[in-house]
Amino acid sequence: MTNIRDLAKMAGVSVTTVSRVLNNHPYVSEEKRNTVLAAIKESNYQPNINAIHLSMGKTFLVGVVVPFIDHPYFALLIKGMAMEALENNYKLVLFQSNYEEARELDALQMLKQKQIDALIICSRICGWSTIEEFTRYGSIVLCEDTRGKNVSSTYVDHYKTFIFALQYLYQKGHRKIGYSIGRKSGSNSKFRGKAFKDFVKDYLLPHEPAYIFEDCLYFEDGERVITQIQKMADPPTALLITSDEVAAGIVTCAQQQNISIPSDLAIIGFNNQPIAKMMNITTIEIPLVEMGRKLFLQGIAESQVIYQEIPVTLIERNTV
Amino acid sequence: MTNIRDLAKMAGVSVTTVSRVLNNHPYVSEEKRNTVLAAIKESNYQPNINAIHLSMGKTFLVGVVVPFIDHPYFALLIKGMAMEALENNYKLVLFQSNYEEARELDALQMLKQKQIDALIICSRICGWSTIEEFTRYGSIVLCEDTRGKNVSSTYVDHYKTFIFALQYLYQKGHRKIGYSIGRKSGSNSKFRGKAFKDFVKDYLLPHEPAYIFEDCLYFEDGERVITQIQKMADPPTALLITSDEVAAGIVTCAQQQNISIPSDLAIIGFNNQPIAKMMNITTIEIPLVEMGRKLFLQGIAESQVIYQEIPVTLIERNTV
Repeated sequence: MTNIRDLAKMAGVSVTTVSRVLNNHPYVSEEKRNTVLAAIKESNYQPNINAIHLSMGKTFLVGVVVPFIDHPYFALLIKGMAMEALENNYKLVLFQSNYEEARELDALQMLKQKQIDALIICSRICGWSTIEEFTRYGSIVLCEDTRGKNVSSTYVDHYKTFIFALQYLYQKGHRKIGYSIGRKSGSNSKFRGKAFKDFVKDYLLPHEPAYIFEDCLYFEDGERVITQIQKMADPPTALLITSDEVAAGIVTCAQQQNISIPSDLAIIGFNNQPIAKMMNITTIEIPLVEMGRKLFLQGIAESQVIYQEIPVTLIERNTV
Repeated sequence: MTNIRDLAKMAGVSVTTVSRVLNNHPYVSEEKRNTVLAAIKESNYQPNINAIHLSMGKTFLVGVVVPFIDHPYFALLIKGMAMEALENNYKLVLFQSNYEEARELDALQMLKQKQIDALIICSRICGWSTIEEFTRYGSIVLCEDTRGKNVSSTYVDHYKTFIFALQYLYQKGHRKIGYSIGRKSGSNSKFRGKAFKDFVKDYLLPHEPAYIFEDCLYFEDGERVITQIQKMADPPTALLITSDEVAAGIVTCAQQQNISIPSDLAIIGFNNQPIAKMMNITTIEIPLVEMGRKLFLQGIAESQVIYQEIPVTLIERNTV
């Protein structure tokens, strides 16, 4: 049976070139492509792409770990990755971790076993030593600030962003400020928590634990925030809400409860998802699709460790 | 170098059993697992999972084609698939088609080349002859009514469901009824269009083309529906909106424009997403996560062609 090496010999090209033709990869000259196609025709070769990938040591698959696929934040990141994967002739392999460490390890294991060429972790669970150990087996890229670690990343500086948003609320006259986060143990949440602590200390404001709302990820979590605020004798007058989804839930529920936004409660969302525009929510725009693209390109670049910071923008609307 | 066949011989088990142990597959007895692990240790075997999969003719990868990943409808289907994939030790390979036929063909090609074991198409673009041609290369499952075709499916009977919802609005006194759909050329939209035509004919109601809104997929499309209705001399009094996302956009925008819901305009959404519950939207519940699970299991079942209908439920809330 003819194999890829025979074909390369017949066509007088490298095995890589034959593989590129078989994979419809764009970077092959028209002339070489035609020689390979002629050899395929002549030899009656039946390609087995898996065997070809095996011989190349490449799969053209890139793994992506997300806690859940049905959250707009992660869905928009994946959208960007999928766009770039298409342009570069790769496919994405999806790992839904549900924040269970074993599932992230499963993805790292696939990298070790060369079932994927690179791994993008959108919301890390494993410790740094584990991640760094696996970098020897293939490209790993994180969507968080990895400065000082031996792992590449595309990230938003959440410390800086939080300080900026808190200062904005302060300038608008707010002194009783709180915030919501998703997963408390997440790296981004830690940077945000530190920013908040430093800010209230610097500005001599109260650090009220009741003003911090954890596990806020979905629209319906906004209802919980409003319910808790209604029970407070001394509620916050402004909140940073780290997901527009949740901010939209807060605005909707506040309306039902006759809480006026922004006069009773000011809200800054995060991401600038379409729902924020539609509901006129002031928000910090994070270009998630663009970040997804950059994460993917970093994954396949096989370069040294690079930290890629993504700038964010305040979009002023009607909720502050 | 020791390979998987040597290991099987040493351990006195089948190649499949060795593969299962290497893949951490659950269906291996403790005894056999230990024999294989002892053989691995003794021979100092370094597994190459891709070579193992190649020799088995299996990849433990299942492809999923969706038009976009960042829409809750598709995200919830994928969530269900990912849950079932995990339990069965498979991974999902994602194809974001953006409704371009070439991308769906790309996925079908991967099935042909055995890079995936099965393919789930959530919103088909290719014609039936193309799909049926590729069924010889592996398992293909569709998320639409395929009765009469040689392809398995898990589906909602959108004709029956639309008639049911239209009758409900009729019983509530509505005579000027319209609807929104996503992609006009989609199979589900065709069933819904036919149901609407048959219904208005049977109930002697007007078939007003202006009451039909196409390309309604996202929250912000609700704004467009309201804007169009406000321009009408004789607007509809009730709408079936085939996505809760869009229904939420309509409700939000109607509120801003002082259109009272349900007295000026009644709305029935579809899917029963969390946003529908939060905003008290009457909706047709479609169990998308459950459908995703069933689609996945059909994909890996390698059985004959089966059509699996999923029942839906009307959830009565405040928008009718």
